[in-house]
Amino acid sequence: MGELGLIEQIRSRFSARGRGVALGIGDDCAILRPPAGHEVLVTTDFSLENRHFRRELHPAKSVGHRCLVRGLSDLTAMGATPVAAFLSLALPGDFLKARKGQRWVAGFFEGLHLLAEQSGTTLAGGDTSESPADLIFADIVLIGSAPRGRSLRRSGARAGDEIYVTGALGGAHAELSALLGLGRAARAGAAGHPHLYPEPRLGVGAELMRRGMATAAIDLSDGVSTDLAHLCEASGVGAEVEEGAIPLHPLTKRLGRKKALDAALNGGEDYELLFTARAGARVPGRIAGVAITRIGTIRKRNARVPRVVIRGAAGEVRELMPAGWQHFSS
Amino acid sequence: MGELGLIEQIRSRFSARGRGVALGIGDDCAILRPPAGHEVLVTTDFSLENRHFRRELHPAKSVGHRCLVRGLSDLTAMGATPVAAFLSLALPGDFLKARKGQRWVAGFFEGLHLLAEQSGTTLAGGDTSESPADLIFADIVLIGSAPRGRSLRRSGARAGDEIYVTGALGGAHAELSALLGLGRAARAGAAGHPHLYPEPRLGVGAELMRRGMATAAIDLSDGVSTDLAHLCEASGVGAEVEEGAIPLHPLTKRLGRKKALDAALNGGEDYELLFTARAGARVPGRIAGVAITRIGTIRKRNARVPRVVIRGAAGEVRELMPAGWQHFSS
Repeated sequence: MGELGLIEQIRSRFSARGRGVALGIGDDCAILRPPAGHEVLVTTDFSLENRHFRRELHPAKSVGHRCLVRGLSDLTAMGATPVAAFLSLALPGDFLKARKGQRWVAGFFEGLHLLAEQSGTTLAGGDTSESPADLIFADIVLIGSAPRGRSLRRSGARAGDEIYVTGALGGAHAELSALLGLGRAARAGAAGHPHLYPEPRLGVGAELMRRGMATAAIDLSDGVSTDLAHLCEASGVGAEVEEGAIPLHPLTKRLGRKKALDAALNGGEDYELLFTARAGARVPGRIAGVAITRIGTIRKRNARVPRVVIRGAAGEVRELMPAGWQHFSS
Repeated sequence: MGELGLIEQIRSRFSARGRGVALGIGDDCAILRPPAGHEVLVTTDFSLENRHFRRELHPAKSVGHRCLVRGLSDLTAMGATPVAAFLSLALPGDFLKARKGQRWVAGFFEGLHLLAEQSGTTLAGGDTSESPADLIFADIVLIGSAPRGRSLRRSGARAGDEIYVTGALGGAHAELSALLGLGRAARAGAAGHPHLYPEPRLGVGAELMRRGMATAAIDLSDGVSTDLAHLCEASGVGAEVEEGAIPLHPLTKRLGRKKALDAALNGGEDYELLFTARAGARVPGRIAGVAITRIGTIRKRNARVPRVVIRGAAGEVRELMPAGWQHFSS
C-alpha cells in the first residue's frame, strides 16, 4: 500500500461530508464554511512516538483517540464547536508492508474515527510521509467555530472571581503510572481510562459560552499548577487554590493522599476544563452531565506574593509552583 | 532556552497581528476572522529532515522558506488569499543549548518570516516539542480565504479546455541536482534559486479567481505528469500535452534536452500553477508579471487511450506516466 493507497483508505473511511465542510480530502486545500457570523478557532498538536506515546504501551486506538482529544479539548476550552480536523501522519518506511503495521494504522484510525464521530468532527485533509526514523509522527490541526466575539479566553479573569474545574483530576497521571508499572493497560473499571481515552468536555465548553457564565477558561492539559498560572498571566491576576477542594479522581486513591494531590495539581493530560466566574454567578453543580467544583479564588496581583498560592487544610499558604511537564526543559 | 523561551522568541518576532487574525499565539486556540461571505481554505504540509530537506545541504533559511511555500502554493492554486500559518516544530533535545542550533532556529525563522511578510501571512500559533530523534520535524498549516463558492478546484476541467502553466519548469530539480553534486548552494544568478527559494504564484492565483478565467487549477508540487493526472482524475477527463510547448527553466539547460524535459515533467517542487481555461478564453501572456504558457489540451476521457498523453516534436503520441515523487512507494 503506497501513499495514495493510505490516502484512499482514509478518504473512504471519513468520506461523509460533515457540517461546515464544503470540500474535504482530494484537492489542494479543503474548504470550510463556518456559520455566518462565526469566528474560526484553530489549534495544532504533535503526537510523537516516544514523546507523547509509546508503541509498546499505548494501543493504537488510544494513540488515535489521544491525538484528536488534545485539539478538541483546546476548542472546548474556548467554547467552540468542532468543524474539521487535519492529520499529518509519518510512518516508518516498511510499516505498511507488514500485517502488524497495517493493524496499527487500522487501530489508530478506529480510535480517531470514533471520537471524530462523537464530536461531529470531519477529517478533511492532511499530509502523509515516510518517516525519516523508525518512529511514528503525527500532527493534528483542529478547526472549530464560535459566534463572533463570544469565544472564551484565558485573559478575562478579574480579582474576586471564583475558580472552577470540571470532573476529577489526577486520573490520567494515575493510569499512566499503573500502565508504566504493569507494562499494559488494566481492564476498564468504573473509573474508566482517563489516560488512554480521556473525554473532552465538549458540552461544558459550549454551555459556558452559551450562558456567558465564564470570565476566562483554559483546558487542563499540563496540570492545574501550570495551566492556572497561564490563565493568571494572561489575565494579569493572581490566584489562591484550596487544597481540600481539589476533586481527586478515584484512580488516584491507590497513590496515597500526597501523591494523589500531586497527580491532580501537576499530572496534566486530564483534559478537564478550568474556568472562572464572577463571585455572584450561579454556577450549577453539574453542566452537561459533568460535575463542577469550585477550587479557589482569583486575587489581585501582588508582586510580593507568588502569583498562584495553595491553602492547606490547616490554613497555611504556600506557593503553587508550575510543575507541569515542559518540553525542552533541562 | 526552554520551550517557553522558544515560544516567546517566536511570539515577539511575529507579534504583529495581521489582517483576519483576532487572536494569535498565547491562548488555547488562535481566533481568525475571515471577511464576511468568504469560505476558509486549509492545507497542511510536513517538512521532515532527511525526507524533505537535509541539514547539511539546505541553509536553515531555505528550510523555513520552503516550509511555508508549500502551503502558500496550495492556497494560490485555489485562488485564496493567505490569512494565517500554524507551525509545529520538534527540535533535537540539546539543539537549543548550542550556538549552532540557536543559529539554525534563527535562520529558519528568518526564512519563514520574510516569506510570511511578503505574502501577508500571520504566524498565529502551533506547537513545539522535543524531537524523539536527532532530527528536525516541522508541520505547517496554512489557512486562507476566498469569496464563497469562488475557489478554484481541480474538478472543473472539460474536454476542449486549454492547459496552461505559469513561469518555467524543471528549475527546482535542476538546482537540487547541482546542489547534490556540489554539496553546497551555487551563487544566485539571474536564474535564482528555484529549489532553495521557490516563489509561490500568489498574484496569479488571485487574478485567475478574480477574472473567473480558470475552469480548474492545481499547483505543480509533484510535477506536471503527476499533478495533471490528479486534475484529470478529479475532472473525469483526459489530456494531451505538447512536448515542444513545455517552458523549460534556464537552469535545466546544462542537463541536456532529454533530462531537461524529464525535470520539467517529473521533477516536482517548482510550485508553478497549472490551470485550464475554455478554448475561447482570452488568456494573456502574462498575469501578475508571470509568463503564462499554453502546454496542451483537455480531451474527453477514452478508456482505450492513456489518461494523459504527450505529443512529441515529430507528432508521435505516447503516455505521460505519472512519475512524480510518491511517499511510501517501493
